[in-house]
Amino acid sequence: MHLSELDTPVLTADLDAVERNIARMQGYCDEHGIALRPHIKTHKLPELARRQLEAGARGITCQKLGEAEVMADAGIDDILISFPLVGEAKAERLAALAGRITVSTVGDSATVAEGLSSALARHGVEVGFLVECDTGNGRTGVQTPEAAADLAALVDRLPGLRFAGLMTYPTPPESAAWLDAARRLIAERGLTVERVSVGGTPTAFATHAVAGITELRPGTYIYGDRACIADGSVPLEDCALRVIATVVSRPTPGRAILDAGSKTLTSDLAAGATGHGFLVEHPEAEVYLLNEEHGMVDVSRCPSPPAVGDRVTIVPNHACTTANLHDEVVMHRGGEIVETLRTAARGLVR
Amino acid sequence: MHLSELDTPVLTADLDAVERNIARMQGYCDEHGIALRPHIKTHKLPELARRQLEAGARGITCQKLGEAEVMADAGIDDILISFPLVGEAKAERLAALAGRITVSTVGDSATVAEGLSSALARHGVEVGFLVECDTGNGRTGVQTPEAAADLAALVDRLPGLRFAGLMTYPTPPESAAWLDAARRLIAERGLTVERVSVGGTPTAFATHAVAGITELRPGTYIYGDRACIADGSVPLEDCALRVIATVVSRPTPGRAILDAGSKTLTSDLAAGATGHGFLVEHPEAEVYLLNEEHGMVDVSRCPSPPAVGDRVTIVPNHACTTANLHDEVVMHRGGEIVETLRTAARGLVR
Repeated sequence: MHLSELDTPVLTADLDAVERNIARMQGYCDEHGIALRPHIKTHKLPELARRQLEAGARGITCQKLGEAEVMADAGIDDILISFPLVGEAKAERLAALAGRITVSTVGDSATVAEGLSSALARHGVEVGFLVECDTGNGRTGVQTPEAAADLAALVDRLPGLRFAGLMTYPTPPESAAWLDAARRLIAERGLTVERVSVGGTPTAFATHAVAGITELRPGTYIYGDRACIADGSVPLEDCALRVIATVVSRPTPGRAILDAGSKTLTSDLAAGATGHGFLVEHPEAEVYLLNEEHGMVDVSRCPSPPAVGDRVTIVPNHACTTANLHDEVVMHRGGEIVETLRTAARGLVR
Repeated sequence: MHLSELDTPVLTADLDAVERNIARMQGYCDEHGIALRPHIKTHKLPELARRQLEAGARGITCQKLGEAEVMADAGIDDILISFPLVGEAKAERLAALAGRITVSTVGDSATVAEGLSSALARHGVEVGFLVECDTGNGRTGVQTPEAAADLAALVDRLPGLRFAGLMTYPTPPESAAWLDAARRLIAERGLTVERVSVGGTPTAFATHAVAGITELRPGTYIYGDRACIADGSVPLEDCALRVIATVVSRPTPGRAILDAGSKTLTSDLAAGATGHGFLVEHPEAEVYLLNEEHGMVDVSRCPSPPAVGDRVTIVPNHACTTANLHDEVVMHRGGEIVETLRTAARGLVR
């Protein structure tokens, strides 16, 4: 069966492109001796996580405990949860997970580390803990190398936790000095920084430029999206994730309306690009506005604008949030459908 | 069980506020002799659609065939699908739906009407068809009253379709003259405009100011959101839909990070407000940025900023897209949990 036989809107992924993207990132990491730990937030599919591991990934990264539980249920046995887990309920779930697979997690405060420690110790399990560092992103993370060393020392003392290294995202050039200083201060405390884990597809292929990084956690690279095209990390032909939509209205010569809006494509913008997605068959078109189920397209510059009933293929602005809207994704090769996968880890907000 | 016992992030809805919102909109429609046909895109819950009908709504509105099928399965028997249905697959599904409940739908082109007609006629069913009019929104809809009359006349001739009236959204003051002209031209063709259906919560309570409107299709009013607070349609105390989140990091004195990002709250902005949601306990705070799972909050103006582990209650910018991200919503009264509902019509993109 061919994609052209499917009703729209429908989320599709080109398996050939997925395989090229997996191979390219794994090749880069192998070349530079960096452990690849892909972030499954992008696809939320055990099937693709398995492909990433088969290609050589060291383990996977999840942002939510619920995602990690689904991946563990699917047989994946080395997971980093790269988000601070807070509260008794999550500490108990983390302990249960650590009882069956290898888990590591992160945090930037004594509150997080101590909260996890008591539950983990009670259950007699141990979890690797990476100290999250703010090396320029201005999000989570300890603010100074001294604070990183202090938290590392605390983690080392806490039962149920093992100090496993440092984590940050992304890694601008100035992060090298920051991480160096933290490593030195931590070594002075008699501790070893096993892992220095960094993330982000846009800067992934420059990871080797920052000395001392041992692990890379990119997510978006597997699918690519309009932001990846703009930042050069994934070319258009390797953008695997695409939404097929139908023109449902041509109210004026310059305007076309698609059956794909913000509930199909998200409202996320793409840095370096305007509008809400790239129309493969009509590169001159601009998706200038999304309502929930309507995509408004300026087709005034298109030599052959689409008519009502015509189908278009959209490369979304942001693969991760787009995939998160869809219960299913249709995997294909050259348009021939291979299988339809349920997005098993979708919507697991906790 | 109380909301405070639930792990976060969690989507909640205050049933008392829901009931007040339903009563207020129904009261307005009853007072002005307008049929209320609430849009279920906001909640996607058969349970709330039933409450809207029990309060006096004439029927419901869906944006997707899949939503309508779920609602019909739940026993709801009068549904308007207010989106142009294009293609054989949808025409067949519409015919099947019309075989078991009363259905109407919309369109702005001969292509849409003719596409539906053949499938409906083949199955021996009839569907009401409203001609969608662009009365100022610049989205879908015929562009002139003359075009509305032409399409009405075509629909009247097509088997399987019955010309049922006009539909538009929203209704700025200039729409009155537009709709009047269309009605007059359609009457000259010997046809009656049974229904003039308009939508939108922001202008809902001014519907009576435009003469001749028979039906109102608001959606967001049932939950309210930050956009509704800004436009005056729903006050804060009646904003029923709220996300409870936890502070997971306090990296700097002025910054707090929540476990709720764009995959929990959406990236949608709210006209008339800045940031990504209103923090009920910290009105001085601003959610200035969302990543997928992180909410970045400026707490520098808060007299008592929250600490790691503290919980906050967020009124989202946009209820409809926020509810669409969550598989479940916890219904409560005054914080006491009544039930947890599965968002049965969520993610039905077709």
